Amino acid sequence: MSRHGGDIHGFARSAGVRPEEVIDFSASINPLGVPRPVMAAIKGRLRDIEHYPDPEARQLKDKLSEVCHIDGSLILCGNGCTELIYLLPRVMSFDKVLIPQPTFVEYERACKAARPGCVVIDHMLHENDNFDIDPIELVREAADHDADAVFLCNPNNPTGRLIEKENLAEAAAMAAKQKIYLIVDESFIEFTSESSMMGLVEKASCLIVLRSMTKFYALPGLRLGWGVFPSHIASGLGGSKEPWSVNALAQAAGIAALQETNLKKKTLEYIERRKRSLESGFTRSGIEYVPSGVNYYLLRTKSAPRIIKGLKQHNIIVRDCAGLKGLDERYMRVAVKKKKENDMLMRYMELYS
Amino acid sequence: MSRHGGDIHGFARSAGVRPEEVIDFSASINPLGVPRPVMAAIKGRLRDIEHYPDPEARQLKDKLSEVCHIDGSLILCGNGCTELIYLLPRVMSFDKVLIPQPTFVEYERACKAARPGCVVIDHMLHENDNFDIDPIELVREAADHDADAVFLCNPNNPTGRLIEKENLAEAAAMAAKQKIYLIVDESFIEFTSESSMMGLVEKASCLIVLRSMTKFYALPGLRLGWGVFPSHIASGLGGSKEPWSVNALAQAAGIAALQETNLKKKTLEYIERRKRSLESGFTRSGIEYVPSGVNYYLLRTKSAPRIIKGLKQHNIIVRDCAGLKGLDERYMRVAVKKKKENDMLMRYMELYS
Repeated sequence: MSRHGGDIHGFARSAGVRPEEVIDFSASINPLGVPRPVMAAIKGRLRDIEHYPDPEARQLKDKLSEVCHIDGSLILCGNGCTELIYLLPRVMSFDKVLIPQPTFVEYERACKAARPGCVVIDHMLHENDNFDIDPIELVREAADHDADAVFLCNPNNPTGRLIEKENLAEAAAMAAKQKIYLIVDESFIEFTSESSMMGLVEKASCLIVLRSMTKFYALPGLRLGWGVFPSHIASGLGGSKEPWSVNALAQAAGIAALQETNLKKKTLEYIERRKRSLESGFTRSGIEYVPSGVNYYLLRTKSAPRIIKGLKQHNIIVRDCAGLKGLDERYMRVAVKKKKENDMLMRYMELYS
Repeated sequence: MSRHGGDIHGFARSAGVRPEEVIDFSASINPLGVPRPVMAAIKGRLRDIEHYPDPEARQLKDKLSEVCHIDGSLILCGNGCTELIYLLPRVMSFDKVLIPQPTFVEYERACKAARPGCVVIDHMLHENDNFDIDPIELVREAADHDADAVFLCNPNNPTGRLIEKENLAEAAAMAAKQKIYLIVDESFIEFTSESSMMGLVEKASCLIVLRSMTKFYALPGLRLGWGVFPSHIASGLGGSKEPWSVNALAQAAGIAALQETNLKKKTLEYIERRKRSLESGFTRSGIEYVPSGVNYYLLRTKSAPRIIKGLKQHNIIVRDCAGLKGLDERYMRVAVKKKKENDMLMRYMELYS
């Protein structure tokens, strides 16, 4: 099993097909694809690859600062959000972190890579309340354990559950008092009706918000993420970052993407329709789903291994969640894609259920 | 002063010009530019950005393995050679390293970033013998100091000096006996008539060879490097690497670049002509240069700060070497570019000398 979804190349190679033939439900990318003006910007800046990228991504930061009303000195861009997830524990020297489970596997891996001795406390979420996260409880538990940081994914991956913003704000205030870093990964926040926490970073001294441009703008192959950090750590992180990690085309794409102000409404409307249809399909097929605030579903079915195997015969891949902490062989995650693909997924899921 | 050359964006911003207006002699990139088939490959694969890149860069590794006759399991690709320079000391936990100076500044920075307590022993090179490196002496010194590793850049940056391959092979054998890792960064090797050491990695258990596709194929904005590692560390490094660091277009470009078998001859012939012309210019203007085996020159002149300042008025940037260990305010590095640009450089250098 892959450590992640989205490895169409690995699957294609093992199945003896071309990557283009794979229908990928394992990566949760905006089904509307790369916005046309963003692709045009990339094409228009192809000559930029002959120069080193701006190591500071200054233009992109300016644009982020302008669009998001965030002081540019608090922003750092990365080679995907992943670079920042790895940079944080390395520079901050976390000795003990608390991570709710199940969640994105890279938080734990990054902490262990930074310091093999780092203690990772798993806070297990519960199936019977949809794996919902109570951030206040998490911070309290982290304080009890004298942890340095809490990693949170909101909406959580792979469950698709959103945390209420008020609770998060209260947790951030509590974390600040306890001097515990609350790291909120909002990689999928644009797919929800909720807004980002990043506006609170300037006030809440221990809040860190990570963002991705990979999912919503459908650019995972280009790699682009960013984060908002308290001023006392932003410059230290910047100083420790590897140079040139964000390539020139990603920077150009990011600047163009931020001008796509209508995309959120268009995407949410589209996804909403597709979700209603998928949910009826799941119900019809007796597949349980965790109610999702985002563009993917965590599914629970007794026949998950059989379904996953069956789907592969049609070059359809989903995210097998059997190996994730707090989940088991009943679980898989599927993205919300276009109608035609979703229909195909449902057809084969019913067939192999 | 920038920590590196190539920051046209920083200069453009401070000078109030567009990055396109900057004539960049501070980054040493192939003056022939991105090969046309490579640019065509990038254009043809633009849709790849909608999927996660292959985290293992399997196709690119296969191609590297085939072209370079290296076992693919020993190859690791990176987000530029830089990612691998940072990954090595982190995963290998170097406590003490030896680095000849002057050289590329990232080796020391990477070791310190991985372990702030890492002891870096500077082996100072000497102006009066053109900063030549004796790799055997280095390994011997590293053994005396009980160091874990030696970093070497061949040809050295910023001096442009090549190490004889036989000496390097002997040093590698000695390093293996002493269990000292000899890390040879060959980022500029294609610009020389010398061949790579990578064929020795399989036999010499402590030799590591790092390569770049950024300079020779003129892709610094896209980020692509790779390395050949002894089998006992290759898989560990791969397992510790951040996922998806090499973007999809870089992988496509790399595969196409490896098919450009005529580029070396064409580039060397072109550069050779330009170098003869630049050298006459330097001599005429009383500017001392370190004889170079590569596509850049380390220059020594009493009026370097004045020249650098003067060039900037014409939007020409060179690499100010005043801050590099073992060098001082007399030094700067200039790339070999196209005739028109080289002529312009010479004209203004004469003017401000």
